[in-house]
Amino acid sequence: MRPDDRPTDELRPITITHHFTNKTPGSILIRAGETMVLCTASISDKLPPWMNPEELRGWVTAEYSMMPGSTSPRKSRDRNGKIDGRSTEIQRLVGRSLRAVVDLELLGQRLITLDCDVLQADGGTRTLSITGSMIALLDALETLPEFAGKKPGDEGFPVKDYAAAVSVGLVEGEPRLDLCYIEDSAAEVDMNVVMTAGGRFIEIQGTGEEATFDENQLAELLKLARKGIGELVELEK
Amino acid sequence: MRPDDRPTDELRPITITHHFTNKTPGSILIRAGETMVLCTASISDKLPPWMNPEELRGWVTAEYSMMPGSTSPRKSRDRNGKIDGRSTEIQRLVGRSLRAVVDLELLGQRLITLDCDVLQADGGTRTLSITGSMIALLDALETLPEFAGKKPGDEGFPVKDYAAAVSVGLVEGEPRLDLCYIEDSAAEVDMNVVMTAGGRFIEIQGTGEEATFDENQLAELLKLARKGIGELVELEK
Amino acid sequence: MRPDDRPTDELRPITITHHFTNKTPGSILIRAGETMVLCTASISDKLPPWMNPEELRGWVTAEYSMMPGSTSPRKSRDRNGKIDGRSTEIQRLVGRSLRAVVDLELLGQRLITLDCDVLQADGGTRTLSITGSMIALLDALETLPEFAGKKPGDEGFPVKDYAAAVSVGLVEGEPRLDLCYIEDSAAEVDMNVVMTAGGRFIEIQGTGEEATFDENQLAELLKLARKGIGELVELEK
Amino acid sequence: MRPDDRPTDELRPITITHHFTNKTPGSILIRAGETMVLCTASISDKLPPWMNPEELRGWVTAEYSMMPGSTSPRKSRDRNGKIDGRSTEIQRLVGRSLRAVVDLELLGQRLITLDCDVLQADGGTRTLSITGSMIALLDALETLPEFAGKKPGDEGFPVKDYAAAVSVGLVEGEPRLDLCYIEDSAAEVDMNVVMTAGGRFIEIQGTGEEATFDENQLAELLKLARKGIGELVELEK
Amino acid sequence: MRPDDRPTDELRPITITHHFTNKTPGSILIRAGETMVLCTASISDKLPPWMNPEELRGWVTAEYSMMPGSTSPRKSRDRNGKIDGRSTEIQRLVGRSLRAVVDLELLGQRLITLDCDVLQADGGTRTLSITGSMIALLDALETLPEFAGKKPGDEGFPVKDYAAAVSVGLVEGEPRLDLCYIEDSAAEVDMNVVMTAGGRFIEIQGTGEEATFDENQLAELLKLARKGIGELVELEK
Amino acid sequence: MRPDDRPTDELRPITITHHFTNKTPGSILIRAGETMVLCTASISDKLPPWMNPEELRGWVTAEYSMMPGSTSPRKSRDRNGKIDGRSTEIQRLVGRSLRAVVDLELLGQRLITLDCDVLQADGGTRTLSITGSMIALLDALETLPEFAGKKPGDEGFPVKDYAAAVSVGLVEGEPRLDLCYIEDSAAEVDMNVVMTAGGRFIEIQGTGEEATFDENQLAELLKLARKGIGELVELEK
Repeated sequence: MRPDDRPTDELRPITITHHFTNKTPGSILIRAGETMVLCTASISDKLPPWMNPEELRGWVTAEYSMMPGSTSPRKSRDRNGKIDGRSTEIQRLVGRSLRAVVDLELLGQRLITLDCDVLQADGGTRTLSITGSMIALLDALETLPEFAGKKPGDEGFPVKDYAAAVSVGLVEGEPRLDLCYIEDSAAEVDMNVVMTAGGRFIEIQGTGEEATFDENQLAELLKLARKGIGELVELEK
Repeated sequence: MRPDDRPTDELRPITITHHFTNKTPGSILIRAGETMVLCTASISDKLPPWMNPEELRGWVTAEYSMMPGSTSPRKSRDRNGKIDGRSTEIQRLVGRSLRAVVDLELLGQRLITLDCDVLQADGGTRTLSITGSMIALLDALETLPEFAGKKPGDEGFPVKDYAAAVSVGLVEGEPRLDLCYIEDSAAEVDMNVVMTAGGRFIEIQGTGEEATFDENQLAELLKLARKGIGELVELEK
Repeated sequence: MRPDDRPTDELRPITITHHFTNKTPGSILIRAGETMVLCTASISDKLPPWMNPEELRGWVTAEYSMMPGSTSPRKSRDRNGKIDGRSTEIQRLVGRSLRAVVDLELLGQRLITLDCDVLQADGGTRTLSITGSMIALLDALETLPEFAGKKPGDEGFPVKDYAAAVSVGLVEGEPRLDLCYIEDSAAEVDMNVVMTAGGRFIEIQGTGEEATFDENQLAELLKLARKGIGELVELEK
Repeated sequence: MRPDDRPTDELRPITITHHFTNKTPGSILIRAGETMVLCTASISDKLPPWMNPEELRGWVTAEYSMMPGSTSPRKSRDRNGKIDGRSTEIQRLVGRSLRAVVDLELLGQRLITLDCDVLQADGGTRTLSITGSMIALLDALETLPEFAGKKPGDEGFPVKDYAAAVSVGLVEGEPRLDLCYIEDSAAEVDMNVVMTAGGRFIEIQGTGEEATFDENQLAELLKLARKGIGELVELEK
Repeated sequence: MRPDDRPTDELRPITITHHFTNKTPGSILIRAGETMVLCTASISDKLPPWMNPEELRGWVTAEYSMMPGSTSPRKSRDRNGKIDGRSTEIQRLVGRSLRAVVDLELLGQRLITLDCDVLQADGGTRTLSITGSMIALLDALETLPEFAGKKPGDEGFPVKDYAAAVSVGLVEGEPRLDLCYIEDSAAEVDMNVVMTAGGRFIEIQGTGEEATFDENQLAELLKLARKGIGELVELEK
Repeated sequence: MRPDDRPTDELRPITITHHFTNKTPGSILIRAGETMVLCTASISDKLPPWMNPEELRGWVTAEYSMMPGSTSPRKSRDRNGKIDGRSTEIQRLVGRSLRAVVDLELLGQRLITLDCDVLQADGGTRTLSITGSMIALLDALETLPEFAGKKPGDEGFPVKDYAAAVSVGLVEGEPRLDLCYIEDSAAEVDMNVVMTAGGRFIEIQGTGEEATFDENQLAELLKLARKGIGELVELEK
């Protein structure tokens, strides 16, 4: 039995609050079970310094942070100038995942920054950050007159397809969908999968935690992930 | 007229959500008009390294940060190892204000950390952080068996009195209570006042912003502050 | 009795050395009792990067630091990239206090930096830094041909009025002027006041140190501060 | 055709120099084509501070860095206190991969640090770092009397199995093994695979670079990786 | 002719103020011409963390910094966590030079920190820091009962001999003693020499500034240095 | 007897590998006994920000670092934003030494960066870095068409003369050439000398390590250094 009595192929309950705050064009408070992330999308005309200003395209980037009160015991702030390695990894993953479904030329010369701040952590913060950021990005684009009323796949719209992410894992040898913290800590294999609505992979990160896995287990995990992502994409729509 | 049509001596509407998150014993989402702060209170047995472990007392400290999406344009994170001076000032003020009403011996050998994270900023974030932290601190103490069911002033309870804070200011020569951002930016004089329920001052910080003020103006501002704090303390109770 | 036998309303003896060093146009070594601060004023044509170069105005800023040998035990240098919170607070106060009496348009496109380095600390370093910086600023302006021979209040002179600062406090319930270190450590209430020669407030910062204070005590403290500042302004002139 | 005329399923030529330097018990200079990494393994009795000293186990960690002259143009050193995100990701991957085949209890209370310094970069530095570190780790263990003469899988030997890593990718729609830099830059999909000699997965990281991929492509890439890793493990042995 | 009309073998006028500040047992304000350095010597029982607490010896260390107002234009403070390379070099030289004449066992388990803060810079700040620190160190030892009344060379006194330092250089081909800033900037060869009262070398650092020098020039420079240091040691005594 | 049985005036065996890596125009792996340094020379058109772009000259700079595996026990990386003082000193010395023989105008508007990374440390790393950098610099210039085929001293060639460096020292009172680590640790006097092929001094740094030395000893040490540098310059040629 899972800690919260879910079947092995069931997502935790998801709730999504649009425009939770109002200073940024996108602001999504997303919950999956006890995990809670605030994803805000800011739009700026100021492109990153490494971009060639003559290229007629934009950029999408992300930052991730866990708030001090999101865990017990309290997590110290990253204030000594070093972001911890895990946060760095996650924010790179979020940005890369969104860029896989964005046409940067169609976006125009704009920087969109997704800030994913974890208010409460109970497993799956990185995948929930991707899913929440996808929605925040769409809300933000909706505020731009040239994109208002359009949706992914529409001609001229910079988002080519929906993307969503979910974690899967082997816990006590059993493949499970959407691990909560207790399961995540005990998992032999932990895998994060990002896919499009069209069922194509954007990213697969599978890790044996002091363990290894074989091809059949990989196939089962990917099947669970596909199911979960299908449901998430429906929610996004 | 004020931007939001309030009378000069009226607070913005306040809403308080207890236990907004559940990983810390105190977690208050407090709003005053458009300003919104999450105040979490964490309890730890690990005292700060500068404290003498043989002293039988505790400590109360605070950290303050504005989230990237709390303002427009987006505010960069403090990730280069330097907290901006304003945040340093504010978090020192929050900690000092709470300690003025806490009996650190009665608290016992515990560290309570108040994390004040501004989700949305529209003026008065530092005073709202103090008021929200006061409530989060009380909620956190309620979870400790030895203090459960007690309230400020009760014998043996480490909080001696309620404390609350409010901003006042001179805008176009007019004394006003609880400035919103537009007023704050235009104020000739900006003053933050922290008081106890019993009407005693904990802190007064009055600043002429490229201007100065006289004793009569000071008296009028303090009178407004006293009125506002009285109302806030009623809310806390 | 006070540690140095002064009456409660008496300043410590002040000595001011002009042009203590000669590489900056203003250089004041100021002593109040055992406290000793070197305030140098540098003038530069290079404005801070956040200023709009098209605005035809200047800026006045300050930096504050305690030298390692200024206290016993020795104070470590701020060399790890983090200025301690107290120094940040003080240097912001010094800059803000001076800007309250400076007309930045009349100053022209110049940056004036006041460096306040405490050579010996015995209480009141922040207020003495303000008073010393005021004098260093005037000495520095005197070296500019367009301002030579003018004084605060003169037409076209960028300093509108003299400013000075002093600390007051409640020690064993008694209001006292210009606290030395022993008094400062023992004070129930500590207040720093910055005023103009004309008797108007620039800044009031009153703090109950694990204590609170009422309106009568506030009035008594402000009366003492007014007396002390009157005497300091005479010295400046 | 590939830039170096290799068949799509062929590894670049590998050369391995044991004991390239002599101050550490393991020191491997490993080359794959033009990529060249120095992997040193140091043994220390001083465990990381976060480990509970009462646990009777060891730890294996890794650090990764590209030397300034390893690329053209020159790569700046990480000297401002921030390791770039990519290096952080890679060194975490190297450490995790090795720990998947190490029995930390059998290792005993020792810290083994693998330092992977890229002398020359031409694609595949992270996977070559894993393979080189595996060999350096074995050389280092050989110097410990209790493990001398043993090999992975032997009873009481802390390394349970050989591990090796390789990159695969889709370039112009074609699955290829062991990408060089030109191919890596042009790849639609980039995948790093770490496996044991026994053919089990330790880690899969597949990323669509502004592109996506389907299940058939995933299967083809994994097949290529399996072939390459089989050959690498033979070299290690 | 030299900028200040001195003969080539003449020191600038030296003035030494003992106990310029009173929070540290040694505090020397030393001037050579326009160069002015405050050298304070602090004594602590807390030895550096790298020292073995079972060794029955002490340590002498130094820190060097140029104050912001010591030069024109103003020198920025080292507040970003990186001390500039020149300051690092100088403070290492000062500490090493003093340790060459100190018997660390006789000093006992004490840390003496010499803080050299340049108030005004006109060439020769590093050598003046050494000479000033020597005197501050002797003043500090005088305050310890076990060493009071003793002088360098006395039995049981931890300072074995006086040390002093001076700069020499080739300017327009001419060997000169004790360069001021204008000469230092123009010098083809710049040499700093530290010697004992007994005429033995502690340190020689000679540098061709985009130039080179031969053995005869070296001999002439060392002769000048010997003369200058002889005079400095007389002053110290 | 010396630890490796050399006569007191003999260099350790030197081996030089040109083009050890191929991403930079100069890349020298240089060994002296057990000490091993990789010196790469990179050429860039981007001059340092402090240079006036209107000056028609270039710059030569150096960076020095010891790799973690170069010593036993392992040396931690400089990743906290502070380069250790010794590395700073050394890299400044390497850059300064090369610039003494380079005509920066003839070099043209180019930045040449010498990266000296110590792979294995056994004494004399700083002097070997200078000698290796000299050769890497010449190899790098050889790749520029305008300088190909020329050598130091040729008209129009930016390197005016060969430079090389060696350490000498007093060990048990005996002057010795080219100290290895054991000797270096035990030396009473440690001296690093940089000279041109023409026999002129570029830099002398002689330090008494808790000891002092007289003029005769200085003369003997310089004589040994001259012999060693003569042999090194022959190798360079």
